[in-house]
Amino acid sequence: MTINITWKIGVADTTFARFDMYKAVEQAFADAKKQDPTLKIEIVRYTVPGIKDLPVACKSLLTNNKCDIAIALGMPGPMPIDKQCSHEASIGMQHAMLMTTKHILEVFVHFDEEADPKKLVALAHDRAYKHTHNALALLKGRTALTPLAGKGLRQGKAHVGSLE
Amino acid sequence: MTINITWKIGVADTTFARFDMYKAVEQAFADAKKQDPTLKIEIVRYTVPGIKDLPVACKSLLTNNKCDIAIALGMPGPMPIDKQCSHEASIGMQHAMLMTTKHILEVFVHFDEEADPKKLVALAHDRAYKHTHNALALLKGRTALTPLAGKGLRQGKAHVGSLE
Amino acid sequence: MTINITWKIGVADTTFARFDMYKAVEQAFADAKKQDPTLKIEIVRYTVPGIKDLPVACKSLLTNNKCDIAIALGMPGPMPIDKQCSHEASIGMQHAMLMTTKHILEVFVHFDEEADPKKLVALAHDRAYKHTHNALALLKGRTALTPLAGKGLRQGKAHVGSLE
Amino acid sequence: MTINITWKIGVADTTFARFDMYKAVEQAFADAKKQDPTLKIEIVRYTVPGIKDLPVACKSLLTNNKCDIAIALGMPGPMPIDKQCSHEASIGMQHAMLMTTKHILEVFVHFDEEADPKKLVALAHDRAYKHTHNALALLKGRTALTPLAGKGLRQGKAHVGSLE
Amino acid sequence: MTINITWKIGVADTTFARFDMYKAVEQAFADAKKQDPTLKIEIVRYTVPGIKDLPVACKSLLTNNKCDIAIALGMPGPMPIDKQCSHEASIGMQHAMLMTTKHILEVFVHFDEEADPKKLVALAHDRAYKHTHNALALLKGRTALTPLAGKGLRQGKAHVGSLE
Repeated sequence: MTINITWKIGVADTTFARFDMYKAVEQAFADAKKQDPTLKIEIVRYTVPGIKDLPVACKSLLTNNKCDIAIALGMPGPMPIDKQCSHEASIGMQHAMLMTTKHILEVFVHFDEEADPKKLVALAHDRAYKHTHNALALLKGRTALTPLAGKGLRQGKAHVGSLE
Repeated sequence: MTINITWKIGVADTTFARFDMYKAVEQAFADAKKQDPTLKIEIVRYTVPGIKDLPVACKSLLTNNKCDIAIALGMPGPMPIDKQCSHEASIGMQHAMLMTTKHILEVFVHFDEEADPKKLVALAHDRAYKHTHNALALLKGRTALTPLAGKGLRQGKAHVGSLE
Repeated sequence: MTINITWKIGVADTTFARFDMYKAVEQAFADAKKQDPTLKIEIVRYTVPGIKDLPVACKSLLTNNKCDIAIALGMPGPMPIDKQCSHEASIGMQHAMLMTTKHILEVFVHFDEEADPKKLVALAHDRAYKHTHNALALLKGRTALTPLAGKGLRQGKAHVGSLE
Repeated sequence: MTINITWKIGVADTTFARFDMYKAVEQAFADAKKQDPTLKIEIVRYTVPGIKDLPVACKSLLTNNKCDIAIALGMPGPMPIDKQCSHEASIGMQHAMLMTTKHILEVFVHFDEEADPKKLVALAHDRAYKHTHNALALLKGRTALTPLAGKGLRQGKAHVGSLE
Repeated sequence: MTINITWKIGVADTTFARFDMYKAVEQAFADAKKQDPTLKIEIVRYTVPGIKDLPVACKSLLTNNKCDIAIALGMPGPMPIDKQCSHEASIGMQHAMLMTTKHILEVFVHFDEEADPKKLVALAHDRAYKHTHNALALLKGRTALTPLAGKGLRQGKAHVGSLE
């Protein structure tokens, strides 16, 4: 007996961001399929103006489009008002998750995380790529990530490892 | 066969603001109709005292008035207490969106974004104008803005472009 | 044919405040009735200890007492902890409004807005008086305040006017 | 005809606090019964580890245990992280009240309100004692506290009075 | 007559943390069973990437997996953005508790609580161990912790005791 599950994954991004994180998501899915050729994924994309529009877009993906999980790609700006917007968006994200009881991987890259644009783009790619793999792991089940619990994993930079 | 959709768009504004952003919304709709003569829009306006009254006004527009989307026009003042009010209003906006699963374009112009009143009025006009077009794009569907994802678009100032 | 509507208006205030803003509310209603003798108002009052007790009092007025709108009168103190309480109360107010889809006019007078007690009392009176008129305007309908949109109205101080 | 109401009052406290505020609550109830021998109260107590566990305990008291009102006794610590916890607990408290449409008297004593431990214990006792009387007043009805509106009442220190 | 209750306890942790707090939870359960051989516990584990993924994981444990209580193990990083994430996660935790009316013991260890990694690991172990015992006490009933109310208990460091 074979069970064929197609995971429906919502991916929301913004026109405000200054790099295209969606490419990293696509690459992560392609690489995951290479590792597991039976993996079936349907991506539902949603592009909004800015990060404060992401929570409702994700909620719509998780309810109207019946996605199993969502990935939110955003780039908060460097000003204090941008930090506040990012905080408000993240509070919205918490509520969107709790209202749907589904995960939303929040892939936010703060514009001031790296001064060098090339390094920032690389950071964004790494974070989006790794969190896409996290999304796939969460879809596998509650304990798929358990062997890595407490291991100091990082997205956007190198893993820092356990202190033990 | 022709499908005739009339979009119902809520627009909420305040008596606290020191400029009339509604004019920019109207102009954006007029320009959009020039580009697409088949576009049909019904505007439902709602004027409240200040920004903290906007979330419930938008929720009322989206539920009682059955609007498909809302645009919230507000001008937070320059004092720390104004920043706090703006934060509270934005948290309310997140909840209003999540409760209705509909978008609210938050067009907030902070009084201290420009020292020169003329520049501030121009900034407010640009932000309201562009976000009105964003509202129309979101009504078209999830991927209407996708060609612009990650392109560094800005409302209120010139687009900054992609870093890639 | 004559339609006779009696507006039911909730007014919540606190024992913490150091001035009685309810008098300004009463005076505003009296003046409004002079302007429009057909105006019918029923006031439902609710007094609580402090500002953090106001959101649930307003929700109770809007649901249990079936008020059409509420006015919340409060005076946050001058200390950092008071600012935090005020922020929490305002977040509660946002939720109370969104849960009921009704307006709550938040008339908060911060103790440090004026050093001179007489000026502070006058400010509190002005803010409560004007927001009571705002409440009546909101009851008239979505566009009753529209002629004043963007006109830089202020409650507690003189209107600052439009920048245009 | 005599109506015999027994008020069911939830009292939640913490093991984190460094003083027992429940004693003050009990004394307040005893004194209230002396003033009004017909007063009938049933106390339902709930002890949790810290202040962030209080909102759900109070919600449980107000729903599962059908209490009419709740009193939350807590002592936030003096560090910045403690201030943040206190803020999160207070936001939870707002939601617990709005979800149940019942009052929760938040009796929080910040560890840094007094340097002298004896004064801090006295402050905590005064605040818990007075807010217990506030709870009883709120149970009597919406306007039981109205004669004291705007009178500058304080819990934990002496009343400061009206500015008028 | 004997009643045999098996408590279902959800434990959520992260791959971001740099130590494995789950071991302390297991040890606490083992020690509790030594003290009370009749104690029956079923642990349901859930590992997520970071602290902002914990609230929805806990909500899922409390609803989908029908756990009676949950323990959330997390390590916020030392940067300002980490503090903000921690605040957002804690707000989510408050909502998860209030939506389910069940406790979630938030075992957060801030990376900057101790400079020495060994001391930080020991602190994390102590906090997770003691809060696991708190979870068991809360399952026993509302007043299981009451003898310790106001006693200045601490998790992660030595108890500080009562001021009285």
